[in-house]
Amino acid sequence: MKTAEFEVLLKASAAAVGDYLDDTLSSNQLVAGTPHHLLNAMRHGVLNGGKRLRPFLVCETAKLFGGDPKAAMQVALAIECIHSYSLVHDDLPAMDDDDLRRGKPTVHKAFDEATAILAGDALLTLSFGLVAAVEALSAETRVKLVILMSKRAGAPGMVGGQVLDMQAKEKRRSEIEITRMQAMKTGALISCCCEAGALIASASDDDRTRMRRYGENVGIAFQLADDILDEYGDAEVVGKALRKDRGQGKQTLALIYGKRALEDRLAALITGAEELLQPFGERGEVLAEAARFVSVRKQ
Amino acid sequence: MKTAEFEVLLKASAAAVGDYLDDTLSSNQLVAGTPHHLLNAMRHGVLNGGKRLRPFLVCETAKLFGGDPKAAMQVALAIECIHSYSLVHDDLPAMDDDDLRRGKPTVHKAFDEATAILAGDALLTLSFGLVAAVEALSAETRVKLVILMSKRAGAPGMVGGQVLDMQAKEKRRSEIEITRMQAMKTGALISCCCEAGALIASASDDDRTRMRRYGENVGIAFQLADDILDEYGDAEVVGKALRKDRGQGKQTLALIYGKRALEDRLAALITGAEELLQPFGERGEVLAEAARFVSVRKQ
Repeated sequence: MKTAEFEVLLKASAAAVGDYLDDTLSSNQLVAGTPHHLLNAMRHGVLNGGKRLRPFLVCETAKLFGGDPKAAMQVALAIECIHSYSLVHDDLPAMDDDDLRRGKPTVHKAFDEATAILAGDALLTLSFGLVAAVEALSAETRVKLVILMSKRAGAPGMVGGQVLDMQAKEKRRSEIEITRMQAMKTGALISCCCEAGALIASASDDDRTRMRRYGENVGIAFQLADDILDEYGDAEVVGKALRKDRGQGKQTLALIYGKRALEDRLAALITGAEELLQPFGERGEVLAEAARFVSVRKQ
Repeated sequence: MKTAEFEVLLKASAAAVGDYLDDTLSSNQLVAGTPHHLLNAMRHGVLNGGKRLRPFLVCETAKLFGGDPKAAMQVALAIECIHSYSLVHDDLPAMDDDDLRRGKPTVHKAFDEATAILAGDALLTLSFGLVAAVEALSAETRVKLVILMSKRAGAPGMVGGQVLDMQAKEKRRSEIEITRMQAMKTGALISCCCEAGALIASASDDDRTRMRRYGENVGIAFQLADDILDEYGDAEVVGKALRKDRGQGKQTLALIYGKRALEDRLAALITGAEELLQPFGERGEVLAEAARFVSVRKQ
């Protein structure tokens, strides 16, 4: 699959995900009775024109194993709500203190801090209800998905990684510590998407593990590409201020390795992802391209 | 049942809940691998010597219908994690800005704001995993519990109520608006406990509705008793600063009604709760006393 072809696919998927999220955040029974102010803040946090990479991974992994596309989309929307809540909270003044996201005011800027905290809380709470309510899946599968999401998005996963990232500003970290932090902060939710896709399709335990590993590779590659971009990117092409990590005292592997070593590492992660997909032959091509895509982002 | 007898029962339950929460927040597999700093903050937020009224209601309601006590306790712990996270976030500077809770520094004071936000997020995320992992319940029941908790704790429930409460500071609210806000902010999670107890025991839909209504009455009574205490209580007996609501611009029914009318209202709520329990005769006595207990608190 060519990159251009993949990008068309991803864009179409992102548009569909955006529409479904819009529907969910206006008419799903789990939000019926929500105060308007809160619902507006939740919508602001979610309907931001993101690439929707995580939902794409859920749907494509489910498709690889013949899972129900509608069920996969519902789980994908739930995980995107988790991703969105994490961005709303990460942007808060007490965390990364960002005023803009994708050129638009962050939730605490468009509303206020209290509303942003509560909108994040509401999105996180909603996500578990959404997964528990996917009628096309057995109750057993839904329960497994809730447990998986709780672990990967929670204390031993994404939230834990964010705590390590905040702490990292205070003292110099080793390569192992930085890698662990990034695997938790970014890798955990991305690998959750891929494992969830396998679960939705009732794939074998082996395939579930394989897709989790694929997701871990993609997650770490995603973060590494981000770090390289921040350190060596062209601000005009990227469209945002760069060298922010150093300025904020954030520790990335770019503090330890030079450009060449970082790019070699990235290439190894992609090769690893491709190898994990080999058993699926051509059917694994979209996901292989997804792994390459996250690592060659110019913005 | 006499009040003194009830208090002994509630205290014994609170001690057991505290011990189980301590176990959960040190050795449950859902927190395995959590960074120490985060786990300490989560423990600080949860292990605070609360009355554990919500877990008590889950367990007693489940008992009323012959539910499995161990399963009820596990669900009770999950809901207490939700209650604890809500306190951690409510105490934040952007919300109620409280430095102390039960005489101890709040989480953002003992740690920092970012850690408090993330510890709250982690507790909320954990709670859904805990409920999904209750092995003694069928997957169908676990799924129903997750959906129930998502609604009651989320945008149309507790979080929505907190948003309305924050907004209430800005303009004068009507009695209906104040009652709606309190029913969502305090009533939704308390009624969730009672409905969850009925669900755990596979009670009939009628009994489930009955217990939800009982819980709604208890929740509103709880909040009303709090408002009366804040307006008319003796600061020395209560052990904390009073008349805070007025000072913070919070709107309660104490701004609309005098003491006598508020107490009549409270009495009517208790009578309502007692009537809902009548079909259970003596077996409903503990829960009837719980309704009376929340309304006669002196501190």
